[in-house]
Amino acid sequence: MDNADPLAGYRDRFSILDPDLIYLDGNSLGRPTRDGVERIQKTLHEEWGRGLIRSWRGEWIGLPEQVGDVLAPVVGAAPGETLITDQTSVNLFKLASAALAATGRTDIVSDSSNFPSDLYVLDAVAHAAGGQLRIASADRTTGPTVDDLGPLLDEHVGVVSLSHVGFKTGALADLGAITASAHDTGALALWDLSHSAGVVPVGLNGHNVDLAVGCTYKYLNGGPGAPAFLYVRHDLQEHLATPIPGWFGHADMFAFDPTYSPAAGIRRFAAGTPPILALRGAEAGIALSAKAGIAATRAKSVRLTEFLITRYDASLARLGFALGSPRDPNQRGGHVSLLHPDAYPITQALIDRKVIPDFRAPDTIRLGLAPLYTTFTDVWDAVEVITDVVASGAYREYPAEPEGVT
Amino acid sequence: MDNADPLAGYRDRFSILDPDLIYLDGNSLGRPTRDGVERIQKTLHEEWGRGLIRSWRGEWIGLPEQVGDVLAPVVGAAPGETLITDQTSVNLFKLASAALAATGRTDIVSDSSNFPSDLYVLDAVAHAAGGQLRIASADRTTGPTVDDLGPLLDEHVGVVSLSHVGFKTGALADLGAITASAHDTGALALWDLSHSAGVVPVGLNGHNVDLAVGCTYKYLNGGPGAPAFLYVRHDLQEHLATPIPGWFGHADMFAFDPTYSPAAGIRRFAAGTPPILALRGAEAGIALSAKAGIAATRAKSVRLTEFLITRYDASLARLGFALGSPRDPNQRGGHVSLLHPDAYPITQALIDRKVIPDFRAPDTIRLGLAPLYTTFTDVWDAVEVITDVVASGAYREYPAEPEGVT
Repeated sequence: MDNADPLAGYRDRFSILDPDLIYLDGNSLGRPTRDGVERIQKTLHEEWGRGLIRSWRGEWIGLPEQVGDVLAPVVGAAPGETLITDQTSVNLFKLASAALAATGRTDIVSDSSNFPSDLYVLDAVAHAAGGQLRIASADRTTGPTVDDLGPLLDEHVGVVSLSHVGFKTGALADLGAITASAHDTGALALWDLSHSAGVVPVGLNGHNVDLAVGCTYKYLNGGPGAPAFLYVRHDLQEHLATPIPGWFGHADMFAFDPTYSPAAGIRRFAAGTPPILALRGAEAGIALSAKAGIAATRAKSVRLTEFLITRYDASLARLGFALGSPRDPNQRGGHVSLLHPDAYPITQALIDRKVIPDFRAPDTIRLGLAPLYTTFTDVWDAVEVITDVVASGAYREYPAEPEGVT
Repeated sequence: MDNADPLAGYRDRFSILDPDLIYLDGNSLGRPTRDGVERIQKTLHEEWGRGLIRSWRGEWIGLPEQVGDVLAPVVGAAPGETLITDQTSVNLFKLASAALAATGRTDIVSDSSNFPSDLYVLDAVAHAAGGQLRIASADRTTGPTVDDLGPLLDEHVGVVSLSHVGFKTGALADLGAITASAHDTGALALWDLSHSAGVVPVGLNGHNVDLAVGCTYKYLNGGPGAPAFLYVRHDLQEHLATPIPGWFGHADMFAFDPTYSPAAGIRRFAAGTPPILALRGAEAGIALSAKAGIAATRAKSVRLTEFLITRYDASLARLGFALGSPRDPNQRGGHVSLLHPDAYPITQALIDRKVIPDFRAPDTIRLGLAPLYTTFTDVWDAVEVITDVVASGAYREYPAEPEGVT
């Protein structure tokens, strides 16, 4: 399968310092790209060290929009619709606040499978507008649907905000149908693409999505805490006002006008000075994803997750595991969750054996398969190690209690 | 003077790739520290490349607070009061919003000398609370005083927010008296320390300051767009709620609780995932400032600016320049502004001659003297070059029109 993989060559574009390590946590933090390492060092020495302030007049000033345009085809946006700026929570705050103000409504609809940090922010935004966050709740391993959300939609709801891929289950939400349903009731759709950007085609323009945010440090391999992105559909940009108007979003930032005038395009959603070193890392990771192409990446992602589930059926199902992700690849993103009552000690035993998964309390082991560097051999070997650790009972030597992991 | 300088040895702690360059723009972007360059490379290779997700469980997770504690003595704060997170505009938004909510008031007072980006944010925050931003306005090169602001204070004002050092004039505001005056009318004082942190003693605790924000890329030498800081006095922390509640501010972020519960201390003002590479740069720059000590740094800063003004009087005053900064060192921060009708072409001519100042439209040349690496010889030589460029008329060969500079 690796020999037949058209993306196999991309693994060499990453800095892999420990080739024996099976790294299956790219959906929490992707690996460094070789280009990113080189670009950050050049930025450190040449642009900062030698260029100093002159580099702002050169390439730096336009980077948030330029790198946004590199990301655009990966998420199905047009040029000028995507900006790399701030962190996901801050961008979600900005766009949700702007959307409520633009619709003149007070309430937000989300789903219990959404990332908790998103729920915190959305709840705060709705309360600040005098409304509330309405959360659809369902016990399921599939993504939220129109049937789940429809009953919560009415004329008070200005924003429907969900994760495209569920952080626990890896389940895909029906982005097109939910967006259309939000539009039917006069709401705007705001998607968190953190677990889909760079691994699942999003089709923002194709589905007429209004707003989106997401991080760049998972499948886009931008680096730890690399700046996030935001997307605002072109025709909406002039109708939305950021609640945090900073100088990088001003129409003429170096005029030092005491009054704020928003920039014409996507830049109006910027706030403070962008983090250049981190942006350079994001730029390289995003460019590599754009080069590979989202269609080819998704094709390999489906093959990887299918292969993992085949191996799960063959080896793990009989060892007390349950599958925590959808079986239908059309309902699944780039990671697969395995449920086990001893998920925490199993995770610790795996890490000691150089297989890095991700633990999510209380019972979830996430395996994030990054198509640009995860091999089918990685999947095979990882399942062999998991099988051994569980069948032998070796994991029982590890503490049963969780500690912090991301 | 260089031979007698107790901080002279600190220049060697910076990566200086072009020793002939006279860099007088540290108040826009400081130079890279050697430790920062090394630390960022170690983070890139060892922590991200080799450690991968495991580094979050190690050092990364606590960095925003740890580096905040390194900064604390530089600005006169106690441990647990300072957090490195987000950008200055976002932090200003968070603290100004939280302060209005806590005081139950709607209006904010500032001054026309404040950095325009701060005015934009404060105006937005006041409007969102149903109030307005009241701006004291005065045509002066000294900093705002209680006399300027007092008439604007009443029972509707919840926040007084100013820059400690004016970005154009370098003038110091009377932080202690203004803070006390705000308290007298029941308002909280929120200071922007971007142009004072690392060069002027702030004495946050000593002056009983409530709230502060600032960047780390000027005198703290943290790197382009490095994350900013925020300060909340210890006894206020539990009474303030961030308007952007993200997972890094949660009491137990890895419990993935669907409901937000703020962390006990300063961490409650964090939002999304911190930018680790940039934080490492900030850490090294801040640590170097802490090592030098703010008293010794200020003493050299005063000597540098005094020497520059002496040289201005001797050589530049007769060439059409006016001094745009206070003559009294007690009223002056770390940079000195020279006013000239041809400031823009003069700036361009200086850059071509390897003297890097900063231009601020329409007529200001800022000279930022960074005590940790600027020498008295730099000051002497720079004034010689300025004198030559203006006396010879060589600047007239340069375009008269400004373009973007930071």
